[in-house]
Amino acid sequence: MPNAHQISRRILKLGAHSRQAVEDVLAVEEPLEIRIHNQPLSLTMRTPGHDAELAAGFLFAEGVIKSAADIAQLAPSPRNRDGNVLNVILADGVACDWAKLKRHFTTTSSCGLCGRESIAAVRKQLPRVRTQVKVPASLLHGLPRKLCAAQAIFEATGGLHGAGMFDLRGRLLVAREDIGRHNAVDKVLGWGLLKGQLPFDRRILLVSGRASFEIVQKALAARIPILCAVSAPSSLAVELAQSAGMTLVGFLRDGSMNVYCGPRRVAG
Amino acid sequence: MPNAHQISRRILKLGAHSRQAVEDVLAVEEPLEIRIHNQPLSLTMRTPGHDAELAAGFLFAEGVIKSAADIAQLAPSPRNRDGNVLNVILADGVACDWAKLKRHFTTTSSCGLCGRESIAAVRKQLPRVRTQVKVPASLLHGLPRKLCAAQAIFEATGGLHGAGMFDLRGRLLVAREDIGRHNAVDKVLGWGLLKGQLPFDRRILLVSGRASFEIVQKALAARIPILCAVSAPSSLAVELAQSAGMTLVGFLRDGSMNVYCGPRRVAG
Repeated sequence: MPNAHQISRRILKLGAHSRQAVEDVLAVEEPLEIRIHNQPLSLTMRTPGHDAELAAGFLFAEGVIKSAADIAQLAPSPRNRDGNVLNVILADGVACDWAKLKRHFTTTSSCGLCGRESIAAVRKQLPRVRTQVKVPASLLHGLPRKLCAAQAIFEATGGLHGAGMFDLRGRLLVAREDIGRHNAVDKVLGWGLLKGQLPFDRRILLVSGRASFEIVQKALAARIPILCAVSAPSSLAVELAQSAGMTLVGFLRDGSMNVYCGPRRVAG
Repeated sequence: MPNAHQISRRILKLGAHSRQAVEDVLAVEEPLEIRIHNQPLSLTMRTPGHDAELAAGFLFAEGVIKSAADIAQLAPSPRNRDGNVLNVILADGVACDWAKLKRHFTTTSSCGLCGRESIAAVRKQLPRVRTQVKVPASLLHGLPRKLCAAQAIFEATGGLHGAGMFDLRGRLLVAREDIGRHNAVDKVLGWGLLKGQLPFDRRILLVSGRASFEIVQKALAARIPILCAVSAPSSLAVELAQSAGMTLVGFLRDGSMNVYCGPRRVAG
């Protein structure tokens, strides 16, 4: 029975003065290997489900593909019965720069390994977000509740990160969950890509936890102008978002929010 | 001013009916490259501070080193002025199996890529935890408060994961924080290693968030018999802990806890 989203398990629950065996629900974690032309590219621990979206979103955020048309085939490897190996065949003419992917955003010289250089490396590949959109603060205030309502597994297991994509009227277009925050974002981006929803330049991305450098990088690759997080951003997340002209909102909860950069897109 | 733990920044705070510029504090995120004999081994985004512990703990959890004596030298690369490159010189006779490290816990054949095989790969390297220790549930109930009290940066930024190591009387020996959960655990393990605190077979490890497969793997490499998490474990975390004879406690908060496996070490 491979790859359910969640499994139930008998556990022992201990209170201050109680001890009882109860049935508990766990979020499933399984490895997923993404291959290009049968060559392993990445391995991530993820919550099974929406794997094609995860792979497509990952490749999109890494700059390997620009649209669904760049994928000729995306299918589980027939040699892996658990569905934990996905092989991608790129369309004719789509090149995969392996050296660049392996290097990721690291620079080759140790002199330049710092946050500033990490930002420079990302920015060299990804131009500024220039979309002039504006949404009321009240619209953003309402987003976490909508994402939460859509987070089915989290409610049961308490163990998952969520990500959701919204339009500028605050309508939830898609919500995805995963044991890994970056996977949840990849699934959301991959959904949009595979559903022909590109471009994302009039979309809002919300993540249930913190906003790290990596999350901002993915949102930037997707050209999303407004990124919101329910919890705190890191210093580097803010610096990258600012240098790219993105609007980054943190601590979006309980009717409050912190706008870390790009406040022009939020009407208060 | 490279590598402070936190930086402050002017942001815009928007409430339902308020809009004000305030000073906010951000957790710093910066890349750290760990090298062995000047060859890059890993790159992680981390909160600067305790970098030597982070590198030592990482190498320990990966099985490269077994004790502090296996490290001849651990120092920032002089070519990186930001302190973001740490080079490790191993002691004579300590080998580093690069192929194994690159492969990590993945298996070479796609037939065997699943949670079961991931566990088997880890278990092949790491024997069962056999320590017969037992602590009262009430002692475990008290640990999160102690870790929280020690988490200095979190209070200010709200953006960090914490990990703490305790003895069997519930005394906090060390607490570390990081933007990455695995980094916080590596720092704690590295602290113990560098301080000559091995073995950890009478220690309790507490993490502030979720318990993933990776966290259990690190605790297992360190021979820690009791791993506690304030939030949920994943399915694979529980399976690995159980197969290795470790005690795994989740949702340790508000005077309650779930014992997922190894209940014999918890007296209720």
